[in-house]
Formats: sequence, structure tokens, C-alpha cells
Amino acid sequence: MLANDEMAGLVARHDRFVGFAASLPMNDVENSLGELERAVRDLGALGFQLYSNVNGTPLDDPRFGPIFAAAAELDCAIWLHPTRSPAWPDYPTEAESRHGIWWSIGWPYETSAAMCRLVYSGILDRHPDLRIITHHAGAMIPYFSGRFKEVQTEDQRPALGALEHEPLDYFRRFYADTALFGAPHALRCGVEFFGTDHVLFGTDMPLGGPRVVGETIADIDSLGLGDDDRSLIYERNAASVLRIDPAPQTG
Amino acid sequence: MLANDEMAGLVARHDRFVGFAASLPMNDVENSLGELERAVRDLGALGFQLYSNVNGTPLDDPRFGPIFAAAAELDCAIWLHPTRSPAWPDYPTEAESRHGIWWSIGWPYETSAAMCRLVYSGILDRHPDLRIITHHAGAMIPYFSGRFKEVQTEDQRPALGALEHEPLDYFRRFYADTALFGAPHALRCGVEFFGTDHVLFGTDMPLGGPRVVGETIADIDSLGLGDDDRSLIYERNAASVLRIDPAPQTG
Repeated sequence: MLANDEMAGLVARHDRFVGFAASLPMNDVENSLGELERAVRDLGALGFQLYSNVNGTPLDDPRFGPIFAAAAELDCAIWLHPTRSPAWPDYPTEAESRHGIWWSIGWPYETSAAMCRLVYSGILDRHPDLRIITHHAGAMIPYFSGRFKEVQTEDQRPALGALEHEPLDYFRRFYADTALFGAPHALRCGVEFFGTDHVLFGTDMPLGGPRVVGETIADIDSLGLGDDDRSLIYERNAASVLRIDPAPQTG
Repeated sequence: MLANDEMAGLVARHDRFVGFAASLPMNDVENSLGELERAVRDLGALGFQLYSNVNGTPLDDPRFGPIFAAAAELDCAIWLHPTRSPAWPDYPTEAESRHGIWWSIGWPYETSAAMCRLVYSGILDRHPDLRIITHHAGAMIPYFSGRFKEVQTEDQRPALGALEHEPLDYFRRFYADTALFGAPHALRCGVEFFGTDHVLFGTDMPLGGPRVVGETIADIDSLGLGDDDRSLIYERNAASVLRIDPAPQTG
């Protein structure tokens, strides 16, 4: 696919890029499988970006099962990215979401719903070693972790009864980036939930502009972490999740 | 209304209740206004419980404007409570929400969307002294506060341009309870966002059973707050928001 070829070309031409995330035509699973294998094996992709739904279909739809199996087989990372537009109304009496609510809280909701569906459908039981990086520090799961502790609604019972572990055990397997646009209280919450071994430095640039890079670094500084934890978040977790060599030590 | 009469009776008969939150028939605004005034003036209600939507209609619909004006005029508190059922699907390709997602993350989303609509519609500009208590520690706002810092989507611009202050200034005016079902990392995040003067002890009992009371107290203990901050969260903020006398000091 053109986009993946161009990404591979950029990585080849510039020293500062260690790799790229492939794009897949998820509306065509058969072609996605071929393109994923080509991108990882031939182009050196470190994994692929997966949107939180495919044209409105949730990721645990059986048609996507082979994608997760291929990710496990190829041992590559998955970047889970939210997608939602104003066309998803917040109220049944309205035709559209207003005031950017579909983005500000709608996107984290999207990510969280996708995480729930991946957990409850048993995909993480079938592929326990999947490495899925969630945008915005694990979205809603850290702040509302208490709501996943036990069965609270009857319609949770069939799925939870079939899982091998407790829901929170699966949610903690996800990886989280630090892209919170400057919110030290929130980053601390996310790091305490996932642990420093499951948090990767990320900022959402260019969205938010260069400001968010400085704010994200300041948020990490505010945690008062030791050198070991800092090096996990800034570098070693990424190296481990993406199966790349850590950057050479400097200074 | 029968429910409010019975609540007033319970408060009158039992020393341990300092007051109650009235219920209003929000599908009939005219009758709600009369009942609110009766409940507060005649029955001693401290405020009223407001669901995050009224039969699917958002709270900033103009028809509800008089309710907020009356709350300001009567100087009473508003308990904002989420409401949503599986009938609100998470994906446009599905008829229902599954696995309790409508509850676990759907309810916090509901609360957050209602908070956004109250802010963006200018209701908090028109009534700057409204005291609104949000369930589940301010729902999604503390963890995603960075997403409300500046205009990120074009459809935010008209509403934000008409506001007197920055969005986060309004969001911090809400009050938050501590009902997070045992999640010390999350409670710390919420308290850091709102400040100890805007957090009220609450547990969601009987939901979750007696366990959640102990867990919530343990979470507050884990914050390492001084006596002054603890007394704000456990008592003095409630006294101030509900306009009641603090309990007599014991011990």
C-alpha cells in the first residue's frame, strides 16, 4: 500500500525514525492480513494503527479475529486510536454531537469501549501476549477502575463468566501513552494504575502544537520518579513493546 | 409529590438524616417548578436530584432554563446523577450497548456530557452561584482536563466564544463526590483537580454494598491529608454546599 511504502521510505532516509506503524484497510480483512505481513516482514513496520471501530463495527466482531491472530503471530504492536465524528450524537433526541463533545470526551469513550470489547470478548485470553498501546493514558479505565471490580449489571455476567481472569487483570495488560495535554494529576493517576512498566512517552503532536511536548515532559517531571522509572517511560518500554534496540546511552 | 412527602417524613422522624434531595417530574417543567419550591420551602429539601438527561433531552434545552433559575433563586443544591440504559448503543451498527458498558463507562460519559452542555450553553454564566454536585468524582473531567484547555474542534468555537471565562474555570466550579468504588489513584486525581474545598464524601451505597464505604474511607486516608482538608471532605463542604450547620464536634 502506498502509505506504508512511503512510511518505510521515510524511515530508511532519516536516522531519527526507528520505525513506523502500518495502516491497514480494515474494511477488507483479507487484504489487511496480506498488507500487515508485507509491512512487518518486508517494510520493517513495528506494528499497525488500529482505529477503535471499523466503519461503526466494534473490534471484537468475529471478522476481525484473524487480524489479532496475525498480530500475535507476527509479534508486532498495535496502536489503538479513537475515531468518532459529530455524527455520533450524545442524546437520542439530537442528530449530532455538539461543542466538540464527540472529540473531548467522545474519543476517550471510544477508546475505552474498544478496550472493554477486546477484554470481554476473550480476545486477550486467546492472545495473551498482544501488546496494545492505548491513546490518552488508557482513556477512562484508570479513573473508573473501581467500576470494573465486580459484576454490577446483569448483562456483564455472561462475558465475565467466560474469562479466565478478573477484568482489571486484562485492562492492566494494555499499554498507555502519556498524551494528556498537560494534566499532571491525570498522568499520576494513569501511571499509578498501569505501573511505570506499561506507560510510554507520547504527546499527540502535531495536535496541540509544540506546547504539548513541554507540558507532557513537565507532567512526567512532576511525578518525582527515579531514573529507572523515567528511562522506562521515555525509552525502555517503547523498546520492549516495539521490539527495537534501546537508543545508545548518552551523557 | 408523594416521594418528597415521604422523604420529609423520614427526615423528621430520624435524627441521623439532616435533609433530603427532592425528586422532580422533569418531563413537566411547570409542575417541577412548583414542586421544587414546595419541597425546599415547605418540606425542608436541601436541593434536588437532576438526571443527566430528561427522556433523552439534554439539560441545556431551553425548556429547562427556569429550573436552573429556580435553583439559583432558592439557593439550593443540585445532585447531578447519570442515567443511561443498554438502549444507548456504543456502535451505530448495534442496537444495544453490551457487557454493561452503558453503565461502567457510559454513566460517567453521561455525567460529563451533561457538565459540558451546562458549561457551553452559558447556564453557569447566567447562574454563577449554582452548586452542582457531580457523581463519581467529576466523571471524566479531571482525567481529561487537558482536552478542555483550548479550542480543538471548530464546532467548539461558537459556544466558547460566548463564554465569559475559560472552560476549565467552569468545570472547577462543580462539586465532586468521592464515589469511585475503591480507586486511590483516581480519588487523588479528582481531589487535585477540584481542590479539597470542592470534594464531598459519598460512596454510592447501597450500590456496591458496605464494602465501598470502607474502601472509600481507605482511599481518602491514602491521600495523606491534614485534619483541615479531611474535615472539608467529610463534613464542612457538605455543610457549606447544602446550607446546613456542621455536626457538633465530638471527641
